[in-house]
Amino acid sequence: MPRTSEPGRSVSSRLLDLLFSFEPGATELSVADLSRRTGLPHPTTRRLVIELAKAGALEQRADGRFTVGIRLWQLGTLAPLTESLRTTAQPFMEDLYTALHQHVQLAVLEGTEAVIIDRLSAPRALGLVSRVGGRLPLHCSGVGKVLLSHAGTRVRQDVLDGELRSYTPQTVTDPQILRRELAECRRTGTAMVRGEMSNGADSVATRILDGDGRVVASLSVVVRSGSVRPQTVLPSVITSGLGISRRLGWRPGVKVRDG
Amino acid sequence: MPRTSEPGRSVSSRLLDLLFSFEPGATELSVADLSRRTGLPHPTTRRLVIELAKAGALEQRADGRFTVGIRLWQLGTLAPLTESLRTTAQPFMEDLYTALHQHVQLAVLEGTEAVIIDRLSAPRALGLVSRVGGRLPLHCSGVGKVLLSHAGTRVRQDVLDGELRSYTPQTVTDPQILRRELAECRRTGTAMVRGEMSNGADSVATRILDGDGRVVASLSVVVRSGSVRPQTVLPSVITSGLGISRRLGWRPGVKVRDG
Repeated sequence: MPRTSEPGRSVSSRLLDLLFSFEPGATELSVADLSRRTGLPHPTTRRLVIELAKAGALEQRADGRFTVGIRLWQLGTLAPLTESLRTTAQPFMEDLYTALHQHVQLAVLEGTEAVIIDRLSAPRALGLVSRVGGRLPLHCSGVGKVLLSHAGTRVRQDVLDGELRSYTPQTVTDPQILRRELAECRRTGTAMVRGEMSNGADSVATRILDGDGRVVASLSVVVRSGSVRPQTVLPSVITSGLGISRRLGWRPGVKVRDG
Repeated sequence: MPRTSEPGRSVSSRLLDLLFSFEPGATELSVADLSRRTGLPHPTTRRLVIELAKAGALEQRADGRFTVGIRLWQLGTLAPLTESLRTTAQPFMEDLYTALHQHVQLAVLEGTEAVIIDRLSAPRALGLVSRVGGRLPLHCSGVGKVLLSHAGTRVRQDVLDGELRSYTPQTVTDPQILRRELAECRRTGTAMVRGEMSNGADSVATRILDGDGRVVASLSVVVRSGSVRPQTVLPSVITSGLGISRRLGWRPGVKVRDG
């Protein structure tokens, strides 16, 4: 998204704008692209980008364009719960995939969205737009509803008060209905979502708890509508979620807390 | 590593110093920690850290300390070859793990080091210090020797001219011997390293090629010395590496090029 040049903008905010100009679908950017995306003058952009490349945060390709550098990838691996949660969840996700041969996703809450931190996909399963590092809306995805229902009052209120975008005719956009659904998700720890995000895709999601009973992630299976009954998938999703939670230190009886 | 405060240091370099203060073993840092690590005055550190947290690059914990934010993790997933290579290599790494029940590692070249981008570990296998996002020296690890032998003249020269640190009595630190070893690695595309990085750990590594024949990564299996003969492991490591390379578009006959 282009921004206008503000003379008062601090150097640090300019630098962050440059970094966060990289996004899925825009992973290789020229100085001109970056200047357009940030609204910074071309010479300023060039100077800052070269500084970022020198530090290893960006890398320059042979054609002159820039990509995110592997040093930034390494830095990202230090974010709490991403690599450690992936490692813990991996065998459970694989077993779920082996049992069902459907998409399996693991997501965490970030602000008012869900971020996919890992996924396994069947080569011939439903084509999904999501990718590792990608985002999903909280109000109409399986993992989103589970995370939102345990997100604490403030995030829940922000989402319910905000725009509840309609992705398909099935998307629940009425805050009153959504509020009731979330109360149910909170009670059961699961969500079953039919065609609310993509036509023809159903999602079955469950919560992942840590040793303190905090909801730290959500695990889901996404199936083609009509191919498998979500109720059939649910028990295996729940047991896999509980398996991951136990590996994170959770035990039956630990009180569930907001994430 | 602490740095002295230089009044001429640019804001962008200060910001990058703050970000790169986070490292394995130092993932939760207070403003005081960050001030000490960067050599920046406490008030400057606080101001910049708050700006980084506002942008989602850092996150503040309940105890006031900061961690790398999930937005930075997401940004890192855009680095070329990390997520896509992981996804491609995953099934091959799993099969190798199933066949051998030994550590399996995937690494890429970054500067004059190897960076581990994925690994699978046997719960009761040899205790290894490496982790996803961690680094290995090029001159004495299996993946390192494979990557170094295909790294291009300049990187190879830099490493051979630099300090060849001795990790164990077995570490090859003579540039002449190392040069001959690298020529052999380059010819075979593989490396067998015995106890050069850790006493009692052997590594068998092979190269991963892309469609242009470029060496983009190295795959290795690490075994306890004496438990398995490296020669026994080698064929399966080579076939797995070729399998990954084929998935990346490589075909027999494509000329191997430096990475």
